[in-house]
Amino acid sequence: MAQGSERWEILEDRQIAEYPIFSVRQRLSRGPHGKSGRFVALDAPDWAVVVPVLETGGLRSLLMVRQYRHGSDTVCREFPGGVVEPAEDTAAAAARELLEETGYRAGRIELAGSCWPNPAFMRNRFHVFVATALVKENEQSQDEHELIDVEPVAEQLALASMGKAGWDHALMTTAAWYYVRWRESRS
Amino acid sequence: MAQGSERWEILEDRQIAEYPIFSVRQRLSRGPHGKSGRFVALDAPDWAVVVPVLETGGLRSLLMVRQYRHGSDTVCREFPGGVVEPAEDTAAAAARELLEETGYRAGRIELAGSCWPNPAFMRNRFHVFVATALVKENEQSQDEHELIDVEPVAEQLALASMGKAGWDHALMTTAAWYYVRWRESRS
Repeated sequence: MAQGSERWEILEDRQIAEYPIFSVRQRLSRGPHGKSGRFVALDAPDWAVVVPVLETGGLRSLLMVRQYRHGSDTVCREFPGGVVEPAEDTAAAAARELLEETGYRAGRIELAGSCWPNPAFMRNRFHVFVATALVKENEQSQDEHELIDVEPVAEQLALASMGKAGWDHALMTTAAWYYVRWRESRS
Repeated sequence: MAQGSERWEILEDRQIAEYPIFSVRQRLSRGPHGKSGRFVALDAPDWAVVVPVLETGGLRSLLMVRQYRHGSDTVCREFPGGVVEPAEDTAAAAARELLEETGYRAGRIELAGSCWPNPAFMRNRFHVFVATALVKENEQSQDEHELIDVEPVAEQLALASMGKAGWDHALMTTAAWYYVRWRESRS
């Protein structure tokens, strides 16, 4: 019989490598069926993304960014976001990334949902916020390796495009999923 | 001015480590602003997931699996899926994973969408299929480290739960996103 609903026991757990954006652990774990195996897991900081909602003249748009991604070697359309710093509150991280990447400050920021970006081998969490009552406060403040184009996209177009070519970052469709649920919960 | 819409030039690219489920590359890349930096990227096989649709007595349900995940150290509710083998067709991989994990053969399998699981640092793609006309053919055939519980979940419940605790695997909400779009395109 399958026993997919039971946790495994971690018998050994040690870090075996460290890179700039993640470190690698190796574990020896024993399943409910009594067999054990070695599994690799990545430690990385939590990630926070924010869906920034602009309401102007009765039209609702989402503030999106466009940036080159080194893994895919492509340009992706995304919601603003980034890494949660050590000891930083996740909502504060989302608001900080919004301000840095777009120059907008969030008057209100709410958690729409959290999940595992990839529980098969990653240990970190992914948090999705919705920002409203946006006020343009600064210009962007990017570090030397961040080149980000900012543009408001009509909500309907953004949601219709999400997941298609050029809008094909899985975590952004996850953010859109939470945003749609958040929006439904308010209507 | 930001130049987020331009690709970077990869000046150097070499593998620096190899693990059972991925390998690590280090790149030296130069941006459109003329500055260069070193970036880490993961090579991993593509992943394929399948949303299996059961229609019985006018009720529609999705065949889901429950399994322990070594990264999160939690049990997750998911759609069947796994790694695309070298030279394997992605639809064939989805159909194979469905058969192995659930014992069901797909009479019809359609691509609902593809994206980057994490383009920031991963080089692989994620493919989502919808399987219909399901026929129970075998029992599960699991390897020694796979313990998977299978259960049909009413479509409405599955979609309402996706993203919440215990259903919180980002790539599965991405799969649900594509499934909802696929379903809308047929109505």
